[in-house]
Amino acid sequence: MEKEISIGLLGLGVVGSGVIQIINDHQEELQHQLGHTIKVGKVLVRDIEKVRDIKIDKNVLTTNPDDVINNDDIDVIVEVIGGIEEAREHMLKAFAAKKHIVTANKDLIALHGPELEKAAQENGCDLFYEASVGGGIPLLRSLSAGLVSDRINQVMGIVNGTTNYILTKMDEDGQSYEDALADAQALGFAEANPTADVEGLDAARKMVILARLSFLTDVELDDVEVEGISNLSIADLEYGKKLDLTMKLIGFANRRNNQVEVSVQPTFLPISHPLSSVKNEYNAVYVNADAVGETMFYGAGAGGLPTATAIMSDVVETIKNMLLGVNGNQLIKPSFTKELTPPENKISQFYLRLHVKDEIGAFASISELFNQRSISFERILQTPKNNGSLAEVVVVTHLTSLSNFQEALEQLDELSVVKEVKSYFRVEGDA
Amino acid sequence: MEKEISIGLLGLGVVGSGVIQIINDHQEELQHQLGHTIKVGKVLVRDIEKVRDIKIDKNVLTTNPDDVINNDDIDVIVEVIGGIEEAREHMLKAFAAKKHIVTANKDLIALHGPELEKAAQENGCDLFYEASVGGGIPLLRSLSAGLVSDRINQVMGIVNGTTNYILTKMDEDGQSYEDALADAQALGFAEANPTADVEGLDAARKMVILARLSFLTDVELDDVEVEGISNLSIADLEYGKKLDLTMKLIGFANRRNNQVEVSVQPTFLPISHPLSSVKNEYNAVYVNADAVGETMFYGAGAGGLPTATAIMSDVVETIKNMLLGVNGNQLIKPSFTKELTPPENKISQFYLRLHVKDEIGAFASISELFNQRSISFERILQTPKNNGSLAEVVVVTHLTSLSNFQEALEQLDELSVVKEVKSYFRVEGDA
Repeated sequence: MEKEISIGLLGLGVVGSGVIQIINDHQEELQHQLGHTIKVGKVLVRDIEKVRDIKIDKNVLTTNPDDVINNDDIDVIVEVIGGIEEAREHMLKAFAAKKHIVTANKDLIALHGPELEKAAQENGCDLFYEASVGGGIPLLRSLSAGLVSDRINQVMGIVNGTTNYILTKMDEDGQSYEDALADAQALGFAEANPTADVEGLDAARKMVILARLSFLTDVELDDVEVEGISNLSIADLEYGKKLDLTMKLIGFANRRNNQVEVSVQPTFLPISHPLSSVKNEYNAVYVNADAVGETMFYGAGAGGLPTATAIMSDVVETIKNMLLGVNGNQLIKPSFTKELTPPENKISQFYLRLHVKDEIGAFASISELFNQRSISFERILQTPKNNGSLAEVVVVTHLTSLSNFQEALEQLDELSVVKEVKSYFRVEGDA
Repeated sequence: MEKEISIGLLGLGVVGSGVIQIINDHQEELQHQLGHTIKVGKVLVRDIEKVRDIKIDKNVLTTNPDDVINNDDIDVIVEVIGGIEEAREHMLKAFAAKKHIVTANKDLIALHGPELEKAAQENGCDLFYEASVGGGIPLLRSLSAGLVSDRINQVMGIVNGTTNYILTKMDEDGQSYEDALADAQALGFAEANPTADVEGLDAARKMVILARLSFLTDVELDDVEVEGISNLSIADLEYGKKLDLTMKLIGFANRRNNQVEVSVQPTFLPISHPLSSVKNEYNAVYVNADAVGETMFYGAGAGGLPTATAIMSDVVETIKNMLLGVNGNQLIKPSFTKELTPPENKISQFYLRLHVKDEIGAFASISELFNQRSISFERILQTPKNNGSLAEVVVVTHLTSLSNFQEALEQLDELSVVKEVKSYFRVEGDA
């Protein structure tokens, strides 16, 4: 017998409207795939009378969360209300009422993912959140499916569209950070208060989710080393170009010998690296695994319809599981004890920009210092500054450990020829 | 009760060995995901005594196909024997014996896919072939999952690693086609007889599979317009660079107003296009869909282990379906009547290189000819040739139809100032 499956929504913003639009437009495909139609049963909103872009029966709208959460007709709830505490409470109540949940709420999943997954599992419910990372890119499911017969070693991602837009403008048009941010705000790619994006917090939350899934361990937000782009100087981007390097805000998650490192930092990549060509507001995640080698997933990281397609792929999966009676198998089953990588095991190349006094033997004493720590240089650029009284020196090292590099930096500060360490960045992707 | 699930292999080459290696190495993950272990029951080989790289019990090997196909202990068969007629017969027999099949055999699926899917469905069996396109990239399943709530308009892919390697060498090192091919052969990226790769046939087979899946219609190999790279001149690649265009062998599948076009052709893309940065033997598929917008999937398109991971993802899916009792839901359910796009509806930009007599008004008469057909030029390059007696003219047109452009070419031939039409190519990706 054919059944109509009823879903509830918490929230009706851009993404929620996209979900309703897709359900309206794709009844035939959904019926074809599931053998059932989907209808929208109840939608929690703040204001029923608000004028909306989409066609929706006002009787479906409610301002009472219980009309969605404790509604016997509703099997699956799509949480697109955002925020943390309110959404968390709704979800815990919904699991208690045996509802399956699909969400795009990366902040909530990054902070309370393990608690929510536990609650879901205890109640035999699904909790899916494909839309929380990379918008419409089918990322979490691909990683999760691949993991069955492979081992992920590293995930590098451009997972924040706002900062990638700003960096693209700085790189291509030579704009300052401030000008590029203002442009991004004018175009709607950055919010009025851009802190969560430009300081790397949004990316860090997504990397927590990716790292948990990739390494099956309970990475927390506090484990992520986070640095944003607001202090970036255009000078470093220009030097990067001369060295065939592109600056990106890279979310980095790496596992070596079961030690896990997760960070979000401005990072230089070779211009030939596939992530370097990811421009403007686009997102991409580059994965390195034992068997499959290098793969990359690219697409729009935000936007109502792309995010809504990811939500709908989760809704379809949930309904399939319902029909088969196999709900409650969560994406992430932590099975490894978390051990964080210490600085001496964080291995990369580094870009370093210094101002040094322009005197005989200045560069020799610097290179001797690095040499004594077994750090060799792959590339060197030296340019006169201040009418020749200073030299600006840029070097790219070969691979070394973070601790070794940081100790070299401390020693540099004590060197009389070194005027100032201007900046340094990690260089990834086999420069 | 825990059960051991037994799979059979037809063939034990590089990919088959990869499958066995993955099964041996990932028992724990497979058990975790499926609640069951997997063992290799029987493997069809040509020579049991042959020395092999992998550890396998000789009792598992057989030279009799029936030991695999009509083996009551075996539920899932992995076909990696290659070729067409023999593999097809094995598969039809296996479906009759109610075995599920996972294959990497793109040639067979491109030619006989609909027949095999019908046989699978009639017997309630699964037939999966994720590994047939893009090696380890999880492409078919992503497209298929996305389709439930979206509509794919266009798929552009670099789906042949050999030709991409050759084009990368021509582009980056200025090598001739012949030299780049010889290098590719020496490095094992091209076969001794490279015809199927360099003439575009391998790519065409993959595009048939992608087009069928994307547009849910029965595209056949004969519907694909195929042109290889063996006649490419380095001169066009050099001009492309000057125009910020990169030459790629592009598999193209497009649907406009339910008319479907599938082709494999050397095509120019803007250097800023994500496909332009796909280098060497890598593959990538760029998808444009209504809701999700632009997405790209990138990775190794071949190789034993990458291909074996794709096979294993299909094996896991098949076993899950078995455990749930829902086999026989094939990826592709053709639901649209096939209508091919006529030349007047094939819309693109074109690159055109001509030799013209260097006389007053020569270029004017050419541009007048195009102008009369409402074809305007986006970019023009003119260079003197043969001590100035000739001019080499390169133009990139704005969007026009293939038929309009071809008629213009015919008229050009009759123009007295035109010495020779040297080459022309499609330009895609909003140059």
